[in-house]
Amino acid sequence: MQKPQVIYLDHAATTPLDSRVLEAMRPYLEEHYGNPSSVHQLGRRARVAIEESRERIAALIGAEPAEIVFTSGGTEADNLALRGVLHGTRRHLITSLAEHEAILRTAEALEEEGAAVTYLRPGPDGAVTAEQVAEALTEKTGLVSIMHTNNELGTYSPVRAIAEVCHRRGVPLHCDAVQAVGLLPVRVDELGVDLLSASAHKFYGPKGVGFLYVRRGIELRPLLWGGKQEQGRRAGTENVAAIVGMARALELAVEDQEARLNHLRRLRDRLIRRLDEALGDTFVLNTPRDPERAAPHIVNIAFPPQNGEPVDGEMLLLNLDLEGVCVSSGSACTSGAVEPSHVLRAIGLPRETAGAAVRFSMGWKNTEAEIDRAVEILAAVMARLAGVLR
Amino acid sequence: MQKPQVIYLDHAATTPLDSRVLEAMRPYLEEHYGNPSSVHQLGRRARVAIEESRERIAALIGAEPAEIVFTSGGTEADNLALRGVLHGTRRHLITSLAEHEAILRTAEALEEEGAAVTYLRPGPDGAVTAEQVAEALTEKTGLVSIMHTNNELGTYSPVRAIAEVCHRRGVPLHCDAVQAVGLLPVRVDELGVDLLSASAHKFYGPKGVGFLYVRRGIELRPLLWGGKQEQGRRAGTENVAAIVGMARALELAVEDQEARLNHLRRLRDRLIRRLDEALGDTFVLNTPRDPERAAPHIVNIAFPPQNGEPVDGEMLLLNLDLEGVCVSSGSACTSGAVEPSHVLRAIGLPRETAGAAVRFSMGWKNTEAEIDRAVEILAAVMARLAGVLR
Repeated sequence: MQKPQVIYLDHAATTPLDSRVLEAMRPYLEEHYGNPSSVHQLGRRARVAIEESRERIAALIGAEPAEIVFTSGGTEADNLALRGVLHGTRRHLITSLAEHEAILRTAEALEEEGAAVTYLRPGPDGAVTAEQVAEALTEKTGLVSIMHTNNELGTYSPVRAIAEVCHRRGVPLHCDAVQAVGLLPVRVDELGVDLLSASAHKFYGPKGVGFLYVRRGIELRPLLWGGKQEQGRRAGTENVAAIVGMARALELAVEDQEARLNHLRRLRDRLIRRLDEALGDTFVLNTPRDPERAAPHIVNIAFPPQNGEPVDGEMLLLNLDLEGVCVSSGSACTSGAVEPSHVLRAIGLPRETAGAAVRFSMGWKNTEAEIDRAVEILAAVMARLAGVLR
Repeated sequence: MQKPQVIYLDHAATTPLDSRVLEAMRPYLEEHYGNPSSVHQLGRRARVAIEESRERIAALIGAEPAEIVFTSGGTEADNLALRGVLHGTRRHLITSLAEHEAILRTAEALEEEGAAVTYLRPGPDGAVTAEQVAEALTEKTGLVSIMHTNNELGTYSPVRAIAEVCHRRGVPLHCDAVQAVGLLPVRVDELGVDLLSASAHKFYGPKGVGFLYVRRGIELRPLLWGGKQEQGRRAGTENVAAIVGMARALELAVEDQEARLNHLRRLRDRLIRRLDEALGDTFVLNTPRDPERAAPHIVNIAFPPQNGEPVDGEMLLLNLDLEGVCVSSGSACTSGAVEPSHVLRAIGLPRETAGAAVRFSMGWKNTEAEIDRAVEILAAVMARLAGVLR
């Protein structure tokens, strides 16, 4: 039986592993298996691989090697940033209602443990402003955490402006840049952030590895205690092959960044144009229309009730999947949940509309033909569903 | 230039990845790249792979699938067990001075945060007794954490007896079984433990993945907050390929367990005999001589001062490494540290002797010829060093 061709438009959830990345990992899966903490030759070889990877990653984001802490992924990096910094006497955290669950759930856990948290409400585009942050800062504020690029909408936050506001008050800024690193030029020195999270599987690297950038001078309390790995900031045997893979993936992403970005920008324009043509005013575009305000890989739309009947978002996605179109209703990390996206609710979408959202997230291997076909299929599915509704 | 043959005797630090395990992982590195939280077909395929792995692992240790929480490794599993359980009103932890750093450093961090910790002193073999645990239990005790097999000495703890003592007082028992799972028959139902940590790279699986067994009914507070993965007990995109690899590695280890164990027992006997023959009374055997009391893969020895001069443990290891013998001075996680092993200090070795220790840890591919050769080389190196000392 011929496998139907899948149109994968869920790159914000995860990306395929680049075969060149797997090639780079292979020696550390097959041959150089030493524990980097071992002092003998097999250990030292693994140690060198890790430290070289650290140097390459640091250089690619404008950091120093010692400022990179390897983690098991973006979620751990986010958790480490919040808990690592917010443990002293200044236990007030400022964040946004549109952050990823790795930030929001950690913030809630910290509240249970006695911290105070201010959750800023984003504007209709999903971003908070530097002014909102400035107003929320108090003498107790120990950390501000604002994402670089929203994972559901693609919207950029004004990170540089927020960093200035924070630094004027001596407060460090953490930035969840999981949807930005690799895709966009991210330089910690230019952004002015103090901590920054990244995840390899979002930029064609392996799952199970990420990093937290921690500006020199920031005192970080570990989240995982044990061995002295990562200068005592993250215990546990290093995932050598994955770390090597992450460095290679970031290198490839940066090498090819401009070309990939241009391609994605064209795809985004085309997708929005095709959606307008095919669906008219039956949908709302949640992603900012202005390409300057959002990352080029994400387009988020939602369907308000059609003829007075709410659209069943789950049914919509199921039908798209049956036709080979892989998209999501929002963050992959919350799927399975019956609740509509907290991000779409935070930007003011009515519950029923938020419950019928489609996030397209494109990769550099997607083609214009795939975009056209995906919209055709979506229009056909919606016509069917609306027929059912009527 | 011909690469000199390495004799790898550091399997307690890490093991090579079994090529059959890498084969099992390959489809999830190359093709099935979906995020298991995605509802579409690529996501579902990854989800199925994870849940099948969970079922296989659970069956192999006598647990239910829902009792397995995947982690980034043994250290995270240990941290999760301690913090996950010790957060209520019963904030007293009982553990041993011979535990792995992942337990000891976490215990110290918990102390800083207000918990009380009793560190039991092990006997000369490295194990604590059920009686010691019974005496230390109070109404405030929320958790006991005692390892299955000591990672430096190989010594078994009387886990079943300790479990009985704990359960009589309604206190859960966590067991760090990182050096046991795969190597030895480990059944949570027979051991009677409530939580149990394992790490794949100790049984020929990949680095960066492990699991925590959590008995049904134990309330576990997450360590990593975010998405709803692992039934809300561990957030973060699952490391699909690594999880599949871990399940395959455990399966292979259990299939071949009896043969591998018999081989290791022969190697252990031979190693101790050869050491006795070659080194006479110049060394002490820290591992219990009785094969019933310790795992067959670890033999730990140390050199008391020779002719009144302490032996430089670092120099010893360096020389062995130059001759191609990869061993360690103790836990890989603490190497680089100038301090002698905390385990050897805890069992009463004088500082200078503890500082000149050699841990041999064997794997099922080691040969008798390698054991003989390693001892020859050690004897030659010691003769040289002793010559230098004199």
